[in-house]
Amino acid sequence: MFKKVLVANRGEVAVRIIRTLQEMGIAAVAIYSTVDRDSLHVQIADEAICVGGPKPTDSYLNMKNVISAAVLTGSEAIHPGYGFLSENSLFAEMVGEVGIKWIGPRPETIDLMGNKAHAREEMRKAKVPVIPGSEGFIHNVDEAKVVAQEIGYPLLLKAAAGGGGKGMRFVYHEEELAEKFDSAQSEARVSYGDEHMYIEKVMTHVRHIEMQVVRDQNGHVLCLPERNCSLQRRNQKVMEESPAASVTPTMRAELADIVTKAVNAIDYENTGTIEFLQDHDGKFYFMEMNTRIQVEHPVTEMVTGLDLVRLQVQVAAGMDLPLQQEDIQIKGHAVEMRLTAEKPEQDFAPSAGKIEFVFLPTGGPGVRIDSALYTGDTIQPFYDSMIAKLIAHDNTRAEALTKLERIVDETVVVGVSTSRKFQKALLLDENVQNDRFDTKYLEDGFLPNWEKQKAELAAQDD
Amino acid sequence: MFKKVLVANRGEVAVRIIRTLQEMGIAAVAIYSTVDRDSLHVQIADEAICVGGPKPTDSYLNMKNVISAAVLTGSEAIHPGYGFLSENSLFAEMVGEVGIKWIGPRPETIDLMGNKAHAREEMRKAKVPVIPGSEGFIHNVDEAKVVAQEIGYPLLLKAAAGGGGKGMRFVYHEEELAEKFDSAQSEARVSYGDEHMYIEKVMTHVRHIEMQVVRDQNGHVLCLPERNCSLQRRNQKVMEESPAASVTPTMRAELADIVTKAVNAIDYENTGTIEFLQDHDGKFYFMEMNTRIQVEHPVTEMVTGLDLVRLQVQVAAGMDLPLQQEDIQIKGHAVEMRLTAEKPEQDFAPSAGKIEFVFLPTGGPGVRIDSALYTGDTIQPFYDSMIAKLIAHDNTRAEALTKLERIVDETVVVGVSTSRKFQKALLLDENVQNDRFDTKYLEDGFLPNWEKQKAELAAQDD
Repeated sequence: MFKKVLVANRGEVAVRIIRTLQEMGIAAVAIYSTVDRDSLHVQIADEAICVGGPKPTDSYLNMKNVISAAVLTGSEAIHPGYGFLSENSLFAEMVGEVGIKWIGPRPETIDLMGNKAHAREEMRKAKVPVIPGSEGFIHNVDEAKVVAQEIGYPLLLKAAAGGGGKGMRFVYHEEELAEKFDSAQSEARVSYGDEHMYIEKVMTHVRHIEMQVVRDQNGHVLCLPERNCSLQRRNQKVMEESPAASVTPTMRAELADIVTKAVNAIDYENTGTIEFLQDHDGKFYFMEMNTRIQVEHPVTEMVTGLDLVRLQVQVAAGMDLPLQQEDIQIKGHAVEMRLTAEKPEQDFAPSAGKIEFVFLPTGGPGVRIDSALYTGDTIQPFYDSMIAKLIAHDNTRAEALTKLERIVDETVVVGVSTSRKFQKALLLDENVQNDRFDTKYLEDGFLPNWEKQKAELAAQDD
Repeated sequence: MFKKVLVANRGEVAVRIIRTLQEMGIAAVAIYSTVDRDSLHVQIADEAICVGGPKPTDSYLNMKNVISAAVLTGSEAIHPGYGFLSENSLFAEMVGEVGIKWIGPRPETIDLMGNKAHAREEMRKAKVPVIPGSEGFIHNVDEAKVVAQEIGYPLLLKAAAGGGGKGMRFVYHEEELAEKFDSAQSEARVSYGDEHMYIEKVMTHVRHIEMQVVRDQNGHVLCLPERNCSLQRRNQKVMEESPAASVTPTMRAELADIVTKAVNAIDYENTGTIEFLQDHDGKFYFMEMNTRIQVEHPVTEMVTGLDLVRLQVQVAAGMDLPLQQEDIQIKGHAVEMRLTAEKPEQDFAPSAGKIEFVFLPTGGPGVRIDSALYTGDTIQPFYDSMIAKLIAHDNTRAEALTKLERIVDETVVVGVSTSRKFQKALLLDENVQNDRFDTKYLEDGFLPNWEKQKAELAAQDD
């Protein structure tokens, strides 16, 4: 086992990883930007090293500095967490080149799954159902028309190298296809230096269902209970839960079969998540794979009793998975909500500043709060606005939601604005409570209604 | 189900109970003494009512005031927590007389188990093995001599109405029996107005093993995995864990049989704990029964996934237990340590004052911290010195202890002295780590050694 591991991240996920490393008897090295000197992840680490200025590109995204920090501290492995460099195959490669173990899949795998069109083809070859659309790349408007006739409108033009919406266009009629193809392709060329395009059918009234998987270096696979992450705002997950009410045990077993095929096909190593859309008939369509630990991993930990970060480290160290698929039981239901430093009443504008007081209602059965917050801490404007993950675990979905509501009620943060009231409103929403929502519900159903509630909520004390 | 319940307690246990009530959709009423106005349990309750001055006898032990508070607020039930009035049968009776449901066993049962000699006889009748000693009361020295010849020295003379050491004498030789009997009996007469005495053999090299039980009003019984609470200082538990390493599955089943016989014999209602001494041969001897929820109940919750307070409320409301004995699984191992506001380096003198800063390391899998602390809170000198329960849950005992050590390391309390360093030392102790300790180990084995470590630890930063 490693003696020392560098955690190439900050905030709650760095804290989360450092704690598991320490529990495994591994010394944890933190990195920090100049403004993060007093952050919790720095304070609890066994060692900490500054990697640059506040801007992410100067520090947490500065590959040379992060690798130098690992080398200087004698770290044997790097855990990237999520975000920042976690899905950067070049970085993973550089890490390997200096003889440091990357806690995650091989650079080629990151690369393969990072190119959405390649990933799609690879999955299709592995007999994983993908969203209907083009086979391989679409080189011109005529090819696009052929696919469109087959799958119908609306459709989605996507840049193969894409992500984040650049080079992406919704097309509603054939008349606008030519124009949108050209504009999307040229945007792709400018944004990614890669003009490869592909097409996907626009699926409506679908759920975002994902499955966490772990595969060790000897090819043993563990498929964990699925998560429903359909409540999203601007493609950001707002609430995540496990298991999904729309997934029956039979569907879960099917999903596990699909996921196992997928990870075996690409000789995947370590944890990953395959994201699917589930349609009204309960069918799953591959969307993409995340080749890292995810923000929402705690709900899976709560229902299985596993420590996924521990598994990541064990697999990276070459150990076999310490348990088998048949050992996995689903115990109850877990829900997570992301508390952010934002002003929901001002279109979720970020809020930074000094935390004058914080109270996180730890305690009692089935409560977990992952956070790097402490009274006196400062929320920096340079980084992600998530400041805590509030997680509730109980026998049933209804009980878990009620518990989460109680946790949200008790949470106090003074010094920055938070998403607390928005979250409370979401938890009280009838459609959320009755599991009647698709990936568009939050933006198209809930938020317009929430506009009306805001005035009322603004009048209440925080 | 009740609509409103009064919690007749303060601190972490009041907070613990209020949260479960709220999660059950029940309005929670807090009571408080004048100095507890800003305490967490008051802040999170749906309603709060002052019951008197800071001295416990003026407020939390003031039966009339507490009952008035319940009546005034329209509470349908009272949850007493632990300590204070929780084992006061007169109070439980008064509660019943005003038509309020007592969340706990009937007053007669509290009374029966509160008289240690009666409890012993009752258990003997139910064929529960008791500590060797007298059958019934010992009225004079001659009767004592007969029992002594049978069980041998050293023996323990105990006041039947006792508890807390009054009217109790260790007797090492027959020569001192007469004198000690007289002095113990007269002390019992003065302390309890009851001169009934009984005798127990002094058992050495024994463990304190206890079993949590729940019995509903229809006589269904649930016996939960045992706890090992052998690490004690002055009869106060310092660390508690579940399951006990010294208890095999066969022994656990035997213990459950014994406990079931015991609670059926006395038609017990609600949760309770039967405490046993386990000798070198693995045999169990009934010590006493606690007729309330216990401080250490979280370790049982962690390994079973149950909410014991929820079960208490359900049983009190007349509901059947929602699960059966065969549904109980033991998942992993849980350990709890009590963080106290004390100066371990000054013979554990209590420490009171304003909490200038507190950081409780919530987060990650298997971590639970039950506490009423917040930054700005005040630790009063009038009440119990326990300020937080630090609980770790993991696959194995070793992993749970390592996790707990990490939690203890990260915990920060500024403003009062705490037992943190003492706890850290205890967790690092080889005998504790290897489960080699009996009920005397902490006082006779660890503490003398700890004296030496104190200077060293005092030199470190807290």
